[in-house]
Amino acid sequence: MAAKRGIGATDASESAPSAASSGKEPRTARGRRTLRAILDAAAVEFGEKGFHEGSVSGITRRAGVALGSFYTYFDSKDDVFRALVRDMSGQVRDHVAPGLRSADHQIAAERAGLFHFIEFVREHKEIYRIIDEAEFVDPESFRQHYATTADRIRTRLEDAAERGELRGGMSEVHAWAIMGMNVFLGLRYGVWDEDMAPGDVADTVADMLKRGIGA
Amino acid sequence: MAAKRGIGATDASESAPSAASSGKEPRTARGRRTLRAILDAAAVEFGEKGFHEGSVSGITRRAGVALGSFYTYFDSKDDVFRALVRDMSGQVRDHVAPGLRSADHQIAAERAGLFHFIEFVREHKEIYRIIDEAEFVDPESFRQHYATTADRIRTRLEDAAERGELRGGMSEVHAWAIMGMNVFLGLRYGVWDEDMAPGDVADTVADMLKRGIGA
Repeated sequence: MAAKRGIGATDASESAPSAASSGKEPRTARGRRTLRAILDAAAVEFGEKGFHEGSVSGITRRAGVALGSFYTYFDSKDDVFRALVRDMSGQVRDHVAPGLRSADHQIAAERAGLFHFIEFVREHKEIYRIIDEAEFVDPESFRQHYATTADRIRTRLEDAAERGELRGGMSEVHAWAIMGMNVFLGLRYGVWDEDMAPGDVADTVADMLKRGIGA
Repeated sequence: MAAKRGIGATDASESAPSAASSGKEPRTARGRRTLRAILDAAAVEFGEKGFHEGSVSGITRRAGVALGSFYTYFDSKDDVFRALVRDMSGQVRDHVAPGLRSADHQIAAERAGLFHFIEFVREHKEIYRIIDEAEFVDPESFRQHYATTADRIRTRLEDAAERGELRGGMSEVHAWAIMGMNVFLGLRYGVWDEDMAPGDVADTVADMLKRGIGA
């Protein structure tokens, strides 16, 4: 049953599209490390300066790689930004997946998902600025990120309803509601202020999901 | 009791700060109409072009007013953008307030709030682009918009718990969760696609708030 939850909960089993520009995928372990260093540096560069002020030379300087190495993997600043949004989307998914999988009930799984998401955000505060800026810089990536995440949530809710852990009738509306909660709670308790423990935030939401707030 | 819900639910009874730049508040009804026309035109201009591509001359052309009239009320493009974020925030609040006030139970009030919010968004799709762009153009307005909205929600939840309509222990976490749901459901069913009736979305969420999704 845990395995079934796992499959519904994440796309981790699917092979992720390569981060590099088309035809520029790294073929060696060293190449993959360089690509990883460039993406991590791009997260810091765009997170601090935003897309318009950020630069390819700023990224390569932070990554400690030559400008030529950048163009080995990416065609342009637009391309690395697009790759970064997809990469961060995948990082969130992979970071919360183990917690979702190991829970013994879907309410506990949702609690774990939010808990690990807030923890991830605290370590990667730049994720909001980058994904939110994608709405303007690369609307297709922005839409893709949320549509994919909502699909994943809907699948895991429907699977859990079939297992009898959630009510029947789980739908896209429930998925978007849960995604919206988590995004805003991550902003408030992950980015803006760390004045409440992620576990306490997640407990409150789990109770709300379990039995509602009606008296 | 309806009146009490109303007070907790909105700030509509407070006098809104003037939209114009400091010291430039209109003193006549005609001046207030011109200011309104400028703000409505700014919503279209920034909604279509974004802040950086949008221009004061584009706003005055759309509003059908002289450039001098713009500077009678605003100091700069930054100023009218800031005023617009505050104005849209207030418009949402005022649009959902009557539905919140007239409901006979807080779950019904939350349902009405979401219903009217999605309706508002469908008529003002540019609101997302404008408020989301404020994160980059005017972070203080962005923060203010969400902090104020969450405070308002928390107050109405706490009041409803006191009246016995919601469980005890309503908190800022519940407020941010509900705000996040509503923002994302407005994006999905108001801006992206109108493939589901706002009433159906609101019914699903009201049921989720009332009794949760646990089996």
